This record gives sequence, C-alpha cells and structure tokens, in this order.
Amino acid sequence: MKKTTVGILGASSYTGLELVRMLVNHPGAKIDYVSSQSNAGQPFTVLFPEMFGIFDDIFILPEQTAGKKVDCVFSCLPHAVSASFLKPIIEQGIRVIDLSADFRIRDPRVYQHWYKTPHACPELLTDAVFGLCEHYRKEIRSARILANPGCYPTSILLPLLPLLKEKSVQIGGIIADSKSGVSGAGRTLKLSSHFVEVYEDVSAYSVGRSHRHIAEIDQELSIAAGREIAITFSPHLMPVNRGILSTIYLTINKTAAECREIALAAYRNEPFVRVRDGGDLPHVKYVAHTNYCDFCYTGGVDGGPVIVVSAIDNLIKGASGQALQNMNIMFGFEEITALPK
Amino acid sequence: MKKTTVGILGASSYTGLELVRMLVNHPGAKIDYVSSQSNAGQPFTVLFPEMFGIFDDIFILPEQTAGKKVDCVFSCLPHAVSASFLKPIIEQGIRVIDLSADFRIRDPRVYQHWYKTPHACPELLTDAVFGLCEHYRKEIRSARILANPGCYPTSILLPLLPLLKEKSVQIGGIIADSKSGVSGAGRTLKLSSHFVEVYEDVSAYSVGRSHRHIAEIDQELSIAAGREIAITFSPHLMPVNRGILSTIYLTINKTAAECREIALAAYRNEPFVRVRDGGDLPHVKYVAHTNYCDFCYTGGVDGGPVIVVSAIDNLIKGASGQALQNMNIMFGFEEITALPK
Amino acid sequence: MKKTTVGILGASSYTGLELVRMLVNHPGAKIDYVSSQSNAGQPFTVLFPEMFGIFDDIFILPEQTAGKKVDCVFSCLPHAVSASFLKPIIEQGIRVIDLSADFRIRDPRVYQHWYKTPHACPELLTDAVFGLCEHYRKEIRSARILANPGCYPTSILLPLLPLLKEKSVQIGGIIADSKSGVSGAGRTLKLSSHFVEVYEDVSAYSVGRSHRHIAEIDQELSIAAGREIAITFSPHLMPVNRGILSTIYLTINKTAAECREIALAAYRNEPFVRVRDGGDLPHVKYVAHTNYCDFCYTGGVDGGPVIVVSAIDNLIKGASGQALQNMNIMFGFEEITALPK
Amino acid sequence: MKKTTVGILGASSYTGLELVRMLVNHPGAKIDYVSSQSNAGQPFTVLFPEMFGIFDDIFILPEQTAGKKVDCVFSCLPHAVSASFLKPIIEQGIRVIDLSADFRIRDPRVYQHWYKTPHACPELLTDAVFGLCEHYRKEIRSARILANPGCYPTSILLPLLPLLKEKSVQIGGIIADSKSGVSGAGRTLKLSSHFVEVYEDVSAYSVGRSHRHIAEIDQELSIAAGREIAITFSPHLMPVNRGILSTIYLTINKTAAECREIALAAYRNEPFVRVRDGGDLPHVKYVAHTNYCDFCYTGGVDGGPVIVVSAIDNLIKGASGQALQNMNIMFGFEEITALPK
Repeated sequence: MKKTTVGILGASSYTGLELVRMLVNHPGAKIDYVSSQSNAGQPFTVLFPEMFGIFDDIFILPEQTAGKKVDCVFSCLPHAVSASFLKPIIEQGIRVIDLSADFRIRDPRVYQHWYKTPHACPELLTDAVFGLCEHYRKEIRSARILANPGCYPTSILLPLLPLLKEKSVQIGGIIADSKSGVSGAGRTLKLSSHFVEVYEDVSAYSVGRSHRHIAEIDQELSIAAGREIAITFSPHLMPVNRGILSTIYLTINKTAAECREIALAAYRNEPFVRVRDGGDLPHVKYVAHTNYCDFCYTGGVDGGPVIVVSAIDNLIKGASGQALQNMNIMFGFEEITALPK
Repeated sequence: MKKTTVGILGASSYTGLELVRMLVNHPGAKIDYVSSQSNAGQPFTVLFPEMFGIFDDIFILPEQTAGKKVDCVFSCLPHAVSASFLKPIIEQGIRVIDLSADFRIRDPRVYQHWYKTPHACPELLTDAVFGLCEHYRKEIRSARILANPGCYPTSILLPLLPLLKEKSVQIGGIIADSKSGVSGAGRTLKLSSHFVEVYEDVSAYSVGRSHRHIAEIDQELSIAAGREIAITFSPHLMPVNRGILSTIYLTINKTAAECREIALAAYRNEPFVRVRDGGDLPHVKYVAHTNYCDFCYTGGVDGGPVIVVSAIDNLIKGASGQALQNMNIMFGFEEITALPK
Repeated sequence: MKKTTVGILGASSYTGLELVRMLVNHPGAKIDYVSSQSNAGQPFTVLFPEMFGIFDDIFILPEQTAGKKVDCVFSCLPHAVSASFLKPIIEQGIRVIDLSADFRIRDPRVYQHWYKTPHACPELLTDAVFGLCEHYRKEIRSARILANPGCYPTSILLPLLPLLKEKSVQIGGIIADSKSGVSGAGRTLKLSSHFVEVYEDVSAYSVGRSHRHIAEIDQELSIAAGREIAITFSPHLMPVNRGILSTIYLTINKTAAECREIALAAYRNEPFVRVRDGGDLPHVKYVAHTNYCDFCYTGGVDGGPVIVVSAIDNLIKGASGQALQNMNIMFGFEEITALPK
Repeated sequence: MKKTTVGILGASSYTGLELVRMLVNHPGAKIDYVSSQSNAGQPFTVLFPEMFGIFDDIFILPEQTAGKKVDCVFSCLPHAVSASFLKPIIEQGIRVIDLSADFRIRDPRVYQHWYKTPHACPELLTDAVFGLCEHYRKEIRSARILANPGCYPTSILLPLLPLLKEKSVQIGGIIADSKSGVSGAGRTLKLSSHFVEVYEDVSAYSVGRSHRHIAEIDQELSIAAGREIAITFSPHLMPVNRGILSTIYLTINKTAAECREIALAAYRNEPFVRVRDGGDLPHVKYVAHTNYCDFCYTGGVDGGPVIVVSAIDNLIKGASGQALQNMNIMFGFEEITALPK
C-alpha cells in the first residue's frame, strides 16, 4: 500500500522532534522531508543525537520544499512565518496541519490584535478547521487547513466545552490558573529558558488578559456557549520539561458531580480523554509522554466555585500528538495509530 | 552581656535546621538545647552533616527538657503534640514560639474541626498572639505564647490584610491558587515526597475548602474585614525544595494601582516586605533563602479580577525566619538580626 | 494464536510498572497476574494512577500465585526474597526471569559474601543464564532461569566485554565512575530518596570495592578475559529520575579507535547497542525511556587511559526492557517486540 | 573608618551577582561601581530582581571605569578580555582580583596553547599570585595581581596539594572525574545551558586531556610535587544550579587514613576546609551557598586506588567567595568576613 507522504517545516523544534519520533513508528505514513532555515544541510541527528540510527535525514531549506509533492505538510514554524510559508503549499492543493496559531483565529482582526501583525492570507481562514478533534472531528475529516490548537487552550477547552454546550448550564466568571513546563517556550535561546534561571524557581507571567492564547480560548468558549465569554488566564512557568496543569475556577449552576456526568457523556468514546473522579486529581506525570488529556471536577461546596484540574503533555496532546491524531482522521487511519498511551 | 538562651523542640525537622542555621549567627542568642524524640543521643551533624564544624550538639529527649531554664522555647513539633509539650513549659513562665498550628486558631471548636482532635490546653489560647509581626507587632512584644503563622497563610495574608482593613474596600470572592516546594511537607517519609514521584511532576491537592490552613486564613481575613470571609484555596506541589508562589484572584472595587498604594502605605517601614510594581511579578527565587515576602498587584482590566502574585521562602518567612523575627521583637533585639536578606 | 501468559511478582515496584507498560503493548503476550505483598487487593491504578484505563488489574498476594499455570514469571522482588519465591515456581517447570541479583552469581559463596545471606536454592544456580543477551543469546533461548543483569553492570559490561574477549587486548586497571538516577534505589521510602534530600544535590556512595554490583561485574569481566579481574567502582546519585552514565577509565594497549572497531564488529547486528563516535559522548537523555545502550571510546592520548562513556535507562535496558528482550528471545518473538526506541 | 572601595567588571554574570551579595554585607568594603558592556545604563535590579531594595546601582560601561580611583577591582570578565581591561588598571597601581584564567598560568606559551590566543600582558605574569589562599596566603597579602583559581581546580587541588608536598608520598596516575552544576557555564545563552536540554540529563564533556582547567591543575600539582604531573580530567554536567563534586582516583603509596592525617595537619587552622572521615563522603549540598571545601579520603583496599571525594560551591569557594577571601587577606580584614558558612 502506498504510504501517506509527509513534510515537516520547522522540524528543528521540540514539536518537530516529537512529530518525527511518532511518525517513524507510523505504519501508513512516511516522512518525505524535514526543513529548517538555520540547520539546512545538517543531519537531523546533529540537532537531536538521540535519533541516531532511527532517523538520519538531512534538513533542507524551507525554500527547497516548494516543488515537493507530498500528501500532508506539518508546520512547526512560528506564527506569521507559518502562514506565509503554507500559503503556496495550500494553493497547490496539499493538505496542511499548522501547529502555529495562524489559522486558529477566525476573525483576522482579532488575529492582528493579539499577534501584532496582519494575517498573511486572510482569504484562507474560512477553510481552516480548529483541530480539537473531540469537537470538530467531522470537519477535520475533509479539512484542507488544519489549525492545531495551542497547548494551554487544549488543557482548558476539553473540560469546559461540554459544559458550555449544555443548555441548562449557566456559567459566570472563568479563571484558569495554568502551570507549564519549559518546552512550551520552545528551543530558542532566551534568558527565561536558561537552566539556572528556571531550576529551583516558580513564576507567573502574562497574567490576566495578556497571553495570546486567550484569543482562541475565548473564541471556542464563545462558540460553544453561543455568547461572548472572556476568560481570566494566568500562565505559570514550572521547572519541568513537559506538561501543563490547569486549575480552573468556575462560577456555575451545577455541582462538580453534575459537570462530571456531562463530560463523561460527551467523551464516552474518546480514546485520549480520561475523566477522573473528583477525588482523583490528575498529575502532570499521569499524562507525560502520552496523548491523554486527564481532568476531573471538584469543589463547589459552600457556594465556592467548581474547580477543574486538567493535565496534558504540552508537546504531545498539546501539540504534535494532537496534530498526528488529526492527520490520522484526515487521512483515514485508525485514530490512535502511532500515538503514545 | 548575658545571651538569651533558647531551646528547640523537634529540631530534627527542616524548620529546626533553618532555626539552628540562623541562631548560630545571632550575636545575642545562644542555643541551650535541641531535642528530638527519634534522634536523641545522636549529634545534630549526623542528621545534618552540612553543620559539621558549625553546630555539633547532641539531641536530647523532649522529656529531658523539663527542668531546663531557658528564656525562649521554639517548637517545631507537629500539631497536637506541640501544645501538649509546650503546656508545662508555658506554665513555668518560659516564653514560647510555636511553629505548629496549635495556638493559631482562637476558637478551640474551629481548631478541633480542622485538626480532628481536641485542643490540649484551650485555656491558654487567649494568651496566644498570632505572629504575623507586620500586623501584631505591639502584641508580640509582650507575648508569652507566640503562634507562628503557617507558610501558605503568610504568603496570602500579607498582600490581603491591608486591603481588608481599608474601609473603602469591598471584596467579593477570594481565590488563592498556591504553589509550594516539597520541604513544606516536612522530612517525614511518605510516597508523595519520594524524589521519583515529585520530579518532572506538578500536581494539585486539597483544593477548594479542605486544606487546614484555611482556618487561620479565614480567621485573620475576617478579623481584618470585620465580617466573615471564606476563601477558596488550592495548594499545589511543585518540584522544588523551597518557596511558595500564591496567585490570588480578588473581586474588588479597586484597581491594582490603588491596591498597591494601600499596601505601600501599610508596609512603608517593614524590613521584610517588598511591594513590587504591577509588571514586576515576583519569582520564588527572588525570595528563596531570605526572609522577604515579595508581592505585586496586577490585572483588574475589563471587569476581570485584580490578581496578586506573592512569594516567600516557606522555610524562612513562612516558618523559621518569621519565628526568629518574632523572637527578636519579643526579646528587644534589632528586628533584622541574623535574618537572611 | 495463543498468547504467552505472564505473571509478575513484586509488581508494585518501578520495574514492575515499566514491565506492565511494555507488556500491554506486546501482541504475543498477556499479563495473567500481578502480585504484591503490601498492596494485594488494590487495583494497579491506585498505586500507578497513570495506568487508568490501560491496566486495571487487582494485585494478588504472592502466595496466591502458587497454582497459576503461566508460561513465564517475572520477579521484581528484592534479592533473597526473590529466590525463595521463585524456587517452587521453577520446580513446577515455569520459566522465570528474575530481575533481582539472586541468580546472577555463579558461586553461592560469592553470593553470600556480597549479599550477607545464604542462597535459597544453590542447587538451581547451574541452570541460570546471565541475561546479557548480546553475549548469551544462544543460552537464553532455552533458559529455564534467566538472571537479568543489574543496571550498573549492564552499562559497564556492554562496552567492556568485546575488548576483554579479544586476545590481543591487554587491560590493566579498570575504574568505573557511574552516575545513576534515583529510581535505581526503588520505590521504598528512605531518607536518601526524599525529594528535598536529593534535589540540588550530587553525591557518591559505596565507592571503591563495596557496592554489591561488583560481584557480577567482576564475574563477567573475568569470564570474558579468562583471568581474575577486580574493578574499582564508584556509584553516584544524580538528581534525575532515570538513567545511568558510566565513565570508565581503562589502562589498555589499544587506542580508542581500535576499541571502537572491536565493539562495532561485536555489535554489528545488535538492535539496542549504539556505538557512537569518540567525539559524540552519549547523554543520559539519548537513551532515557528506551532500550538502547549507547557508548563511545575516547581519550588514550599522551599515555592517559582510554575513556568509555556509556549510557542506559536504568529501568529499561538496565532492568525491565532487558528482561522483556530476554522474554522475546526465550519465547521466540521478534527480539524488538514492544521495546521502546 | 574609611572603607575599602571596590569596582566590579563584568558584574552582570553569576559570579558578579554573588560578589555583590556578599560585599553589601561586608562592614569594611563598599562597592564603588559595577560595569557591564551589554547592560550599561540599566539598574542592577533589572538583571537581578532579587536584589530589589538591596543593591540598586546602575551598570556603567567598562570604559567609564578608567578614571575611578578605587582600592580594588574584581574582574568577572571572560578570559582574554579580562587581561586587556585589567592592564591599565594594574598600571595605575590599583590591586586587582581576576576571576578569569588570564593570570593563573605562569608560562604565557602554556596559556596560549590552552586559550588559543596570545596573552595580553605577559610582562605582568610574574607579579600574579595564584589565589589558592590555603597554599599562597603569604604571597597574597602583598599581591598586586590576584589570579583567582578556577572552580574545578579548587575542588581538585585542595585535597591533593598536601599529599604532593609531602616528601614520603609517591603518586602515579591521577584521574579526576568531576561533576558540576550549570552555573559553571555562565549566564551566556547557549543550547547546552537551555533548561530542556539539561533537565533530566547527565553528560560528560571535554574528557581526558582537553578541558582548559588542566593547565592550572597540572601547573600547581607539578609545583607542589617538584616534578611534571599530567592529570586525566573528565568534567560532567549535572542538572543542578551550583556545586562541584570531584571523585579523584590516586595511585599512591599511602592508605586513605594516612592521606587524611596529612591533610588534617595541613589544614588544621583553615576556616573553610573541612576534612571529613573516610566514611562521611561529602555531598554537594553540604557546601552549597557556602565558602567551604569539604573532602575525604577512602578506598585503597586490595591494591585499588585511594579515592578522594571533594565538594565545593562553584560560585562561592570556586569563584566569588574565594575571591572575597583573597580580598580580605590582601586588605587586612578578618579572613572570614562576609563569607557564608
């Protein structure tokens, strides 16, 4: 059987590494090329020596990918750069899965507000599907442009969307206090990712209404609820490599147990969502190196908020694993193929 | 000049080690004894080899401290045990500084509710002073029983109390999402403090209204506000040794800048409180190994909550450093003596 | 096709967890039971909540395994306990894979010297095969008793055995300076595995000629060389969960490049040995969560020693992965089945 | 009393921070300026927010230090750059303490061999004193140019020099296997100091005869022994912020106990050297955040090497603490002033 051929743009990133790791084990897909602006000409194993003997391809320049006739292109490029590179590829009719934020926001003005740059191809936005497959699986099957969700949004939207879609639920304020590992900040060199700065430390950043992921969180919550929702969101940096733990406070007219029932019903057949008991708070390590999203509902006593604790691996379910799950859906593979449990 | 003599009960704990570390550098105080039930007869340096050549005393049994005529006794014993041991010492007229929770709660029924055991000496509770010196300095000077505040409460109360004391402030819900290092769980062996369980992990525990520190947080907030306040409090375990970062969400009728002004006025002369700018969010490492509490106020835009980020070292300002600061006040030393900056 | 049925003794350990993780993905094997003295009656997921939805079996008592007719039993029990439990199982004709040290040492007096207890079944020792499959593959195929090598020995023996087997090689002193993650010390509670004691720390222990793994290292080196060899071995504890890095100093009559050639020839067809270039020193993270052993040879200039740097994951190639590789050989599966790369 | 005035070049480094931290607590010294090429014009607290309220000076340009009449200049600049900047300062008659390698090597050809650049002022080398104060205290008192030893060399030389100076000792090969925290690599951005690359990892680098610190180790060992000595030296990177642990293997005609006696005699009155018992192997955490060097001697059984385990904090005794200890000696302060224990 002919394999689905795949190209990866910006493959020298942590998400690129994770994609390659999984794809080499995929029985129906084959990596055709990996590209990297700054590492072109070097073997993948020079950047990632752990892949010695497993994947030894040479990085090509992004420009050299132009004529490549592959079935699917993953982009691990930064936002703005990503849409520019993907535009001609999309126009060639190649299906793309974009791990950047470029195709997540439906309204190009909202995109420009948060990302401080005009969108490179606003005319293509209507063709993009938000790749939270538990909620958009049908649209994903035929998507030409798959906008893979952000890591924080994935951890927050999965436990909240079933509630917001439920007619009988009334939600007031939503506060998400999220804790992320350092790989979420990428492999680029910056002082805030220097080992000595992060080790032994815990810190908050971009708290309130300033982190870019608010755009897609608000968008998807609002679509589900059928009204405008504005979240309060406080990301934190934790001294671990991977994982996000989101603790979410909901002013809501349901008990934690009722929320759990709604989620259990919504996710009954989902292979990568694990709704836990209220007393069984998920840890980051329960989901590290896997494609699971684990969460539970608790609190809500004495008039206090219902509290959601939600965990994912930011590089897998929060990025490359979710992207591969989407590829599996788009190309008709069994959905769990090559995804770590 | 005669030195103030000091005994330390339960000195084989992390808080005991920190007390000893600071006291050996105190020009006006002298450690008379260290006691430990399970390590009596052994040198301090067998438990803490880093103290080799600095403090080589032998642990005595708690029972052997009975006749010791010291000026001040610190207790690092667990709750319930602590009050039982301190009772006869207090009755001898020795001034005590209790790092356990036993003398923090004014109402013995509230104590029993949270700590699941009757108080050992409820008749002494009226003599106890809550040792948050920035708010009880006058009472501390003459205290016979000093109830040293808990670590989480210290990080939460210091930024909130000035606001609650202010007549013009109206506060609705308060949510504190706190992140602590592992030393807060003590040196006792348990699976949840095993290296392999904690490293690479981030987790929540006792979220909502179930952690014992809620008793003293609610009590002090309510006293300051002059009405009943019930906090939502979610502690988290971080893979670091020391430090607490509390992110606190306030529904309040003031801006972040106004909150800052109130705090700056309240703490103008405090040697160990640093009110930072709204954009200068404190990190745990800014205060690690010091007696500082750093915090700032931000958020409050578009109807969202004002957000406080507050940091302390749980073993210093959250325990032994605050205890020593209280000793300095009680015995007339310069308040900053022997306290790390 | 009928699956190979498997029982796991002492499955509440970290090596038990890793075995289960791999076996649930093995197409030809099926876990029949997991046993644990102290956790019998509890679900596996109470001890390892990450396995929720993946493996939910209940632990049985070791005694309850007596009548179970399985094809293969893995023992993750501690030494001495392991041989006692395995003896009747072996006598029933069930093939066993012992992850403890009990069947590694050929001479029961040497065993008693190092493990301070007489061997439980010395009469069975002649049936045991040392499970370093790269050197004993033929014997492993038909082994009734498979003695799975220790973690440190695996990292040291793999790069050294080809040299010692080579007639033209003369080796003088061998010094192995090894660094291990904390999971090597097991899940048992002890102060030396307490998070606060290990984090931010690096330490040596049992240096020189005192660590028990010396018994099997000396034995295998001596067999390969055809003469008595006594290694100097210094283990160190590193603040990471997994992995061993061994830096080995060889007084030898070959250059590093010649050593490399010998190893490349010896391991040409090995799926889990990666001989790296002299300048490409392996890191622990290159092999973490995989069954690889990576090493290289360097140094040897100006009369100095040849230096080997060798890396494994102590829980995979150093324990459960190697055990599963041995099971694959013993039961005729493709050798790489279910083993992580 | 007039305070000793101090300038710090390259103060935006980790060693600069540590120097400032200690100097603000020094009763007899005062920081006159801190300089930084890339941060001139910014407050110290922008780079090191932990110093808010403690030390708020503005960085000046190195060029602006020209006319400053201070008593002592510390240089935390990189090698080669350091000597160039210090040359005119030395010629003004200001006493300098250089934390770089530039004045450590007596022979400028050896310097050029290891540092790949000609020395900027070879004519000044004869005036430089190697600042290992336990062995050069007399020369340090009057030194104009103090060459502060490297971190690895300090951990290796302190336990070895007394042995090499002893007539009756014969030493063959010396192998030092050293493990360092990441702060030893400085605050400069590089992939090998990126959090995600180091966390969960352990690795070796520059093993054998390739690390630059070999130059000063060989030099000082050879001077002490009165003959040429060439060490084998293998540094390793550990995922901790601070600390060095050196495990050293000695072929020697003495027992570990005899080595210990020699060291005890040599260091009887040293305030910052702690010779431990053979069974009391030092940990990095015993010396972290202090100016101590802890070590012990063990091994030497059955013809094996004597093994030294030695620990320092690379930023304190291995850099800034040792530099301050040298300043105290040079300017007649009590030697322990402002140095952490």
